[in-house]
Amino acid sequence: MGAAWVFALEEKFNTWDRTGFPEIAAILQNLGKADKTTDEIFDDYVHNFNKQANSATRLQKEVNNYVRCVRAMQAASKSLFDQINEMYELEWTDRDVLVIQSQNLEMLWADFSQKLIEQVAAPLSHHMAQFPEYRSKIEKRGRKLLDYDSNRHALEALQSNPKKRDDGKIGKVREQLEDSRRNYETLNWELHQELPALYDSRIPFLVSNFQTICAAEALFHSECAKVHSELEGVTDKLGREARSGIFNVK
Amino acid sequence: MGAAWVFALEEKFNTWDRTGFPEIAAILQNLGKADKTTDEIFDDYVHNFNKQANSATRLQKEVNNYVRCVRAMQAASKSLFDQINEMYELEWTDRDVLVIQSQNLEMLWADFSQKLIEQVAAPLSHHMAQFPEYRSKIEKRGRKLLDYDSNRHALEALQSNPKKRDDGKIGKVREQLEDSRRNYETLNWELHQELPALYDSRIPFLVSNFQTICAAEALFHSECAKVHSELEGVTDKLGREARSGIFNVK
Repeated sequence: MGAAWVFALEEKFNTWDRTGFPEIAAILQNLGKADKTTDEIFDDYVHNFNKQANSATRLQKEVNNYVRCVRAMQAASKSLFDQINEMYELEWTDRDVLVIQSQNLEMLWADFSQKLIEQVAAPLSHHMAQFPEYRSKIEKRGRKLLDYDSNRHALEALQSNPKKRDDGKIGKVREQLEDSRRNYETLNWELHQELPALYDSRIPFLVSNFQTICAAEALFHSECAKVHSELEGVTDKLGREARSGIFNVK
Repeated sequence: MGAAWVFALEEKFNTWDRTGFPEIAAILQNLGKADKTTDEIFDDYVHNFNKQANSATRLQKEVNNYVRCVRAMQAASKSLFDQINEMYELEWTDRDVLVIQSQNLEMLWADFSQKLIEQVAAPLSHHMAQFPEYRSKIEKRGRKLLDYDSNRHALEALQSNPKKRDDGKIGKVREQLEDSRRNYETLNWELHQELPALYDSRIPFLVSNFQTICAAEALFHSECAKVHSELEGVTDKLGREARSGIFNVK
């Protein structure tokens, strides 16, 4: 962000004819390196931005795939338990427990997949929506920087030609330079504020997503464990009774 | 199975010329109804057999689909946690716990899907393999019954024609009748033993499958719940620390 004082200095010097002051030209050239340093910081910000956007894209892909699989499991579990219920004959022991626990299982899966969709996949989509906006703002800053540089070079060329000095033209280009610098500086300043803040937001964003996933999973699995323990009890009882032969036709 | 004594009686009467004894012919005709009663029992057995085979086929279809979904979930869970691990930066709190618990989760999924494949899907395939054998035995019994009936009718036709009585031919057909009856009776007797036993086996078969599924699910879910509770702790801690701003670049 050190750019601001360079601009201030440059603005001051631009009111003079620098060509007669080679020392000042050299100073400004060196200050150009300060510009370059600023760009390196910005390059880091853009690098982080790309890393962050790519990570979020991959996370979204994985979450969407996970949600699809959970939905498939939900349907497969329902079909499997429907079939087991169909095979579980009316007179067999604890059929009502099987029916109730199958319904519980269905609700657990529905609740789990619903949570993942509403509390993980949806916020993730919302989060993803901001990256294209920032990307176009970064590109716009790049275009404004090109404008600014080209105006700067145009002014330098006019000023470095003392034979055909045209003060009217110089004044016009100086105005353009001023405009393009303002445009660039505004965007640059905003992005220098926004990109690191956006990058920092990756932590609470991942925390929130990951917390929601873990909480939903922990609840789902602990409830499923209970249902399946109940069902284990039902099958154990049926197994014992079946061994006594009471359900046999032969 | 009342058929055996009908055969014994028939065999006894077949050594005589029944045409001169209409009462005996009538008795044998009535005994035919006993044959028919036996067939109704057998029809019930075949009905049960078909019901059992269809149920097992549908169960196999559902289990295979369930196993496919579990495998897909296993892969989706691994990919999701790989991505979360990649996003979880080296200096963030409890990264080692995340890595270990992700590996635990991977192992739990692998163990669960392996159990379903080896202890549910494989025995189910093995169970399914016996149905075609029984089906062809049932069909063979049907063909042998046709042979037996046609020989019986051939003998009756020869015996009911006293004008052109051919004792040599009668003796030959009687031998064929004897053979076809033995063939039919053996198969019929075996199936009358085997089909109800097979039908009764549906209970311990379903119990065993269902017990294995429930036990594998209960263990899997209760272990998964633990892992996700651990991971919830990790994210809570990261969330608290991140709120203090120590990981921020800005």
